[in-house]
Amino acid sequence: NGVGIDHFGFLEDGTFKQRYLVNNEHWDQKGGPILFYTGNEGDITWFCNNTGFMWDVAEELGAMLVFAEHRYYGESLPFGQDSYSDAKHLNYLTSEQALADFSVLIRELKRTVLGAQKSPVIAIGGSYGGMLSAWLRMKYPNVVVGALAASAPIWQFPDMVPCGDFYKIVTQDFARSGLNCDVNIRRSWKAIDNITATDDGLQWLSGEFSLCSPLKKTDLDGFKAWLQETWVNLAMVDYPYEANFLQPLPRWPIQVVCKHLGFDPSVVSDYQLLGGISEAARVYYNYTGNCPCLNTSSTATGNLGFIGWYYQACTEMVMPLCTDGIQDMFEPQDWNFQAFSDECHSLFGVRPRADWADTVYGGLDIASHSNIIFSNGGLDPWSSGGVTRNISDSVVAIVIPDGAHHLDLRYNNEYDPHTVLSARVLEVKYFKLWITQARKLQIPG
Amino acid sequence: NGVGIDHFGFLEDGTFKQRYLVNNEHWDQKGGPILFYTGNEGDITWFCNNTGFMWDVAEELGAMLVFAEHRYYGESLPFGQDSYSDAKHLNYLTSEQALADFSVLIRELKRTVLGAQKSPVIAIGGSYGGMLSAWLRMKYPNVVVGALAASAPIWQFPDMVPCGDFYKIVTQDFARSGLNCDVNIRRSWKAIDNITATDDGLQWLSGEFSLCSPLKKTDLDGFKAWLQETWVNLAMVDYPYEANFLQPLPRWPIQVVCKHLGFDPSVVSDYQLLGGISEAARVYYNYTGNCPCLNTSSTATGNLGFIGWYYQACTEMVMPLCTDGIQDMFEPQDWNFQAFSDECHSLFGVRPRADWADTVYGGLDIASHSNIIFSNGGLDPWSSGGVTRNISDSVVAIVIPDGAHHLDLRYNNEYDPHTVLSARVLEVKYFKLWITQARKLQIPG
Repeated sequence: NGVGIDHFGFLEDGTFKQRYLVNNEHWDQKGGPILFYTGNEGDITWFCNNTGFMWDVAEELGAMLVFAEHRYYGESLPFGQDSYSDAKHLNYLTSEQALADFSVLIRELKRTVLGAQKSPVIAIGGSYGGMLSAWLRMKYPNVVVGALAASAPIWQFPDMVPCGDFYKIVTQDFARSGLNCDVNIRRSWKAIDNITATDDGLQWLSGEFSLCSPLKKTDLDGFKAWLQETWVNLAMVDYPYEANFLQPLPRWPIQVVCKHLGFDPSVVSDYQLLGGISEAARVYYNYTGNCPCLNTSSTATGNLGFIGWYYQACTEMVMPLCTDGIQDMFEPQDWNFQAFSDECHSLFGVRPRADWADTVYGGLDIASHSNIIFSNGGLDPWSSGGVTRNISDSVVAIVIPDGAHHLDLRYNNEYDPHTVLSARVLEVKYFKLWITQARKLQIPG
Repeated sequence: NGVGIDHFGFLEDGTFKQRYLVNNEHWDQKGGPILFYTGNEGDITWFCNNTGFMWDVAEELGAMLVFAEHRYYGESLPFGQDSYSDAKHLNYLTSEQALADFSVLIRELKRTVLGAQKSPVIAIGGSYGGMLSAWLRMKYPNVVVGALAASAPIWQFPDMVPCGDFYKIVTQDFARSGLNCDVNIRRSWKAIDNITATDDGLQWLSGEFSLCSPLKKTDLDGFKAWLQETWVNLAMVDYPYEANFLQPLPRWPIQVVCKHLGFDPSVVSDYQLLGGISEAARVYYNYTGNCPCLNTSSTATGNLGFIGWYYQACTEMVMPLCTDGIQDMFEPQDWNFQAFSDECHSLFGVRPRADWADTVYGGLDIASHSNIIFSNGGLDPWSSGGVTRNISDSVVAIVIPDGAHHLDLRYNNEYDPHTVLSARVLEVKYFKLWITQARKLQIPG
């Protein structure tokens, strides 16, 4: 009982309990489809609650819903509390093992759930979970009849897309959300340098941001990285209504942020500018008003498994990002693979394989696959590595111009732009097509 | 330099030297195709010499030939002399690792060989190598544009085909090659029991077969298994001309064997019958006349890696075979997974996963793939687990009624039946189609 820890070797024959959530309230037990969420780097209950789309369409499709947790996250820990203890225990944290887990689970469900034997299964996921959905269809087309890969940056790997596109999109989101907004953020880095040149300045800045721990000179890079990640996260969750994904936020949060950053850049002082920046950051960190101080060591929900994801980035998920300060509003920073590799080695004792994702998942050359929808949000920085054009009749792209990170996977909302509504309609249309195809192709017996 | 020992984990970061052979005598350096032999369980030079088809078509296609050795065989030993020392060292002997080796090698060749960057690559293999060719196309369609899987029993796994078909085909080969041939072999097992009931009988039998070591009572099961494997091997290499694949043999060797087994079964004595069996076995083991005695501990060429293949059978390559003595000419023997698993555990410290091949390689459900030819010999017992009907327009089957094990992969020969000649013509036609498709689809840049 349980799923094998190592699908690709036979020395380690231990098993572990993989968590998955099932809802069959609307399921047509006579072979109705299964919508299978391919869990990503976090607690599956959180993804379950943030994937309302599946709940919204279950009745129309007569579908069973399954949300499968990714190994090494949430409660699905192959070695319990030791899972993260060293490189030896982390060795089975790979996307290939996770895909095999999903395949084994789906086959097990079909074998054991009465009525599910011939149920067509559709993989659904967002972000890394979306990459897994697409890859599950690519690698195990016998297990899933199709995949919806929402905001899945399957091309954000070395030599596939320009490393600067990601931050360009972040910048565009701020540029379009308020006058001078990106310009003032671009100027803020120098203002931080200017002000923190003195101890008084450091103290002022710590107070202005209500930081939980006052800044030291040596914290400055970390502080800037924290701010940069704040803007990135805002770009990811720039939803058209109040929501709580990475943080509780107002509707169109970047517009709210930008209200604090509208100064004329030619006349604003460094102090005024950083005052605005601190107000802006508070929109993200303290929308509820319950946050007594800002903590620069975290930027988002605790539901995500940061260490696990870091390990994955340090092994397979090598995603180059870079900034130039011209096409984006950040300080220039090249992609430095060697430095990254060294950091990985000192943290985890492993080194990333820059080419592996391209080899194993096909890179730009995915035309021979079928039944995959890649949906992308025009506001989402991860659309930089997404598939945004049709590859074939059955590997198709949907772009939702005013959508942020996998908006289409969220519950219907009265504030949804019409573009996301039509995206969802189209997605369901493809689902039905795949289900019909699958029933026709079914092997007798 | 070298290829990674573990593609699916990052703890083991060692590399090893994989052997591959290249011929570019006829290669069109301006992007001519690459025919890539996916090596199976043995020394690659031997497969290279027994795959004349690739040499025969190289000029017509302007193709480079590459023969890649499978890890753990020949000289491609991940841990040198220690590679087989224990389950820990054997842990990286899997088909998935081998497929990844091939993909990494192909990408490396394209990157480093001038003119090969855009060369379409076609995977070719026979037997287990043919399974690997098909799977390489299924799992890495970005790396190979198509695959010729010759005599590849991708369906010889649990619950896919009846376990008795294999030996039925062996029996049919003998039945059609001479009057009473299968009937007399079927009777030989009881005759062995009768005669070896006494010590004199044992001695007589050892002498009659010129065995290198005289038979003991406890050797009888082994002796019968050796004979059974002899008949199986003959069925595999029942070629229409003199050849030396598993052993040096005359043309249509089963016909020659059956000349010794034509007695009227109702009048022949046990001694006469086993005399005929020993003559028949000698056709297989001593066609050259250079063999002073018969050795029951081996049945075929030393170019195959038997221990490695046993380990693979004990892990992923679980291929149920069984006999009933009615539809086949062997003693009845059920497929006993538990006994097999226990044997594997005592030999290697691992247990087979009966379901895994089905999960990972799609089982009967391979219709969503493309550009695969499954060629099968009607005489070949392995056709029992082969794909012998078209699955789609581009996953197609070829049956060569008078072909044995991957006859189509051998050099052209004046004695070739016309069915294998047309099979080869059709195979080349598909190759050209795939090459044309690939050139059209090529991603710019």
